[in-house]
Formats: sequence, structure tokens, C-alpha cells
Amino acid sequence: MKEKGKHGFIIVYTGNGKGKTTAALGMALRAIGRGWRVSMIQFMKGTWHYAELDSAKRLAPDLEIIPMGKGFYKILNDHYTDEEHRAAAVAALEFARTKMLSNQYDLLILDEINNAVSTGLLPLAQVMNFLDQKPPDFNVVLTGRGAPPELIDRADLVTEMREIKHPYQKGIFAQKGIDF
Amino acid sequence: MKEKGKHGFIIVYTGNGKGKTTAALGMALRAIGRGWRVSMIQFMKGTWHYAELDSAKRLAPDLEIIPMGKGFYKILNDHYTDEEHRAAAVAALEFARTKMLSNQYDLLILDEINNAVSTGLLPLAQVMNFLDQKPPDFNVVLTGRGAPPELIDRADLVTEMREIKHPYQKGIFAQKGIDF
Repeated sequence: MKEKGKHGFIIVYTGNGKGKTTAALGMALRAIGRGWRVSMIQFMKGTWHYAELDSAKRLAPDLEIIPMGKGFYKILNDHYTDEEHRAAAVAALEFARTKMLSNQYDLLILDEINNAVSTGLLPLAQVMNFLDQKPPDFNVVLTGRGAPPELIDRADLVTEMREIKHPYQKGIFAQKGIDF
Repeated sequence: MKEKGKHGFIIVYTGNGKGKTTAALGMALRAIGRGWRVSMIQFMKGTWHYAELDSAKRLAPDLEIIPMGKGFYKILNDHYTDEEHRAAAVAALEFARTKMLSNQYDLLILDEINNAVSTGLLPLAQVMNFLDQKPPDFNVVLTGRGAPPELIDRADLVTEMREIKHPYQKGIFAQKGIDF
């Protein structure tokens, strides 16, 4: 039996620390325990295989994770043009809109969308327009660094993940199972 | 096929914001996608039914969540004595130790253990002793407010979840599916 919240929330996880996407995944795991249907649309990820994709398959159809990005913008081996990144971000938001308005889901996670906005790939106005269309009892989570003040004003719940200590500082790189 | 990280990490999620337990749950979801076995021992929770328990059952035996607490200390309807809370916290840590040393798991989450330490229910020395026994490639996540400086020194990765905005400020209480 699905038990919906009375209020749909706009939740933002931002900041430079680890745990933003991870917290959104945890929220998805909790929500499906209540019988919710959850979709995560990944805005920057899409070129690398993350372990959460395999886990999500075990929770289908209640959880789906859809990578629609072209990889992180201007870091690592970024082979795409600005235009390709922009097109991917806009397409991801339009796809998310069809999900939100389909009446098939209770929670939508827009993973790394804040990065897409803060790096200029996705106009903030399009994201605010998206949020204007949110059904009252529908929940949206927006993750990524650099959430703009307008989005924070608009959100119901905002947590900043602050990096206090990171193993990269000791020269240890991303670890399988932990980071991806 | 299990793909282990080269280094086992001690990871701390602390701070007053939402997303600490949630990030640990997300980390569990990602880790089982790599074939890891994950156990979450809950130090303060135990008297209320959280939705993550139902989700975890769908991922058994790769994920287990074991509530061993007596509820949050001195808040809400706390019917237990200090001694009962202390005994529950010590028992949870000893149980976690048997899990860690069983060679059956790759990641252990000590949920809300920082609260148990910061409220005086669990001596910090016992937690540090526990971490001294951690096998090199084993991963431990410690969540909860008020992680003491000694623990932060000891950890490899520390994120502080800072509350920027919370719906309680608008008089909206905890929501099913989102908060529990």
C-alpha cells in the first residue's frame, strides 16, 4: 500500500562534500520501502558505469536510474563539445518533466542537476519552470554542487554537504564500491 | 564477482543536517552493486519502524539492517533509563565487532553511533578500540551528530551535513517516505 506524504517536498543536496548523490540514493531506498515509485535521472553521468545501476535493477520497477549525461563537464576525459553537453542537459530535464507529469512516480531525483546549472549548461529559468509544474504531493530531489540561491529559496529542505576530510588529500583515489 | 577497494575506509557522516543515515543507505546500495555484503547496525533506532527495513529485505542477504537501539535518547517518548540506553549501545558495538571480524561483510554501517558517543552513552575509547581492530580492506561508516575530534582525526573521509533549510521551520513535520 502506498503511503504518500501530505506535502511533496523540493529537497536540495549541495556543497563540496561527498554524500549528495549517495543521500539521494538512500532516500530512494527508503521511499520504495513505503511503496513509492522512484526515478533518478542523471544529468552529468552517462559515460561511466556506476555500481548503483546494478543495484537499482534489483529494485525495479520501483527504482530506475537513467543516465542521460555526457560525463562531467570539462574534467577527466571530456570529449564532448559544450553544445553536446547543453543538449544532453536540456534533454534530461525534458525527459524528467515527462516522468514528473506521467503520474507514475512519487519521487524524482535530478542527479547533479545543480552542476548543470552552475556550469551554465542548463538555464536556471528552465529548472524553476520545471518546479512550477510540480504536482503538490510530488517530491523532487536536486543534487550537485553550486545550487543557486533562487533554488535554495524555492526548496523545502536544503542540506549542504561540507568536505571536512577526504582521502584524496592522502593521495588515495576513488575506490570501487565506495565512490562508483 | 566481488571487487574490493584497495583501501578500507573509515567514513564519518556528521553534522546537524539531514542526509547522514540516508547517505549511508545510499552507500550500501552502491556497494551491493559491486557484490559487497553490507550490514547496518542502528544504535539509537529500534523502537520505530523505518521504511528502510522493508527495502533492505528486498536486497537480502547482501544488505541487512539491524535495529539495536532503544530509540533516541531523552527525546520524544523515551521510556528507558540511562542504564538501559547505555547497555543497548554497548551491546550494539559488541555485535558490530562480531560482524566486522566474521569475514562475512565488506562494509559495516554504525548508524547514529556518533550520537551514542556524544550523549555519553558509549565511551569514545570503546569506539576507537573497535576501529583499531578493523581489517585493512574493511570499510566502516559512522553516522550521527557530534562526531568527536578524535574520530574525525582517525577517519579517512568526513562529510558534515549542514542544515541550510528544513521544513520543520515552516511547521511541517516528518513525512512518511521521506523521513522514515
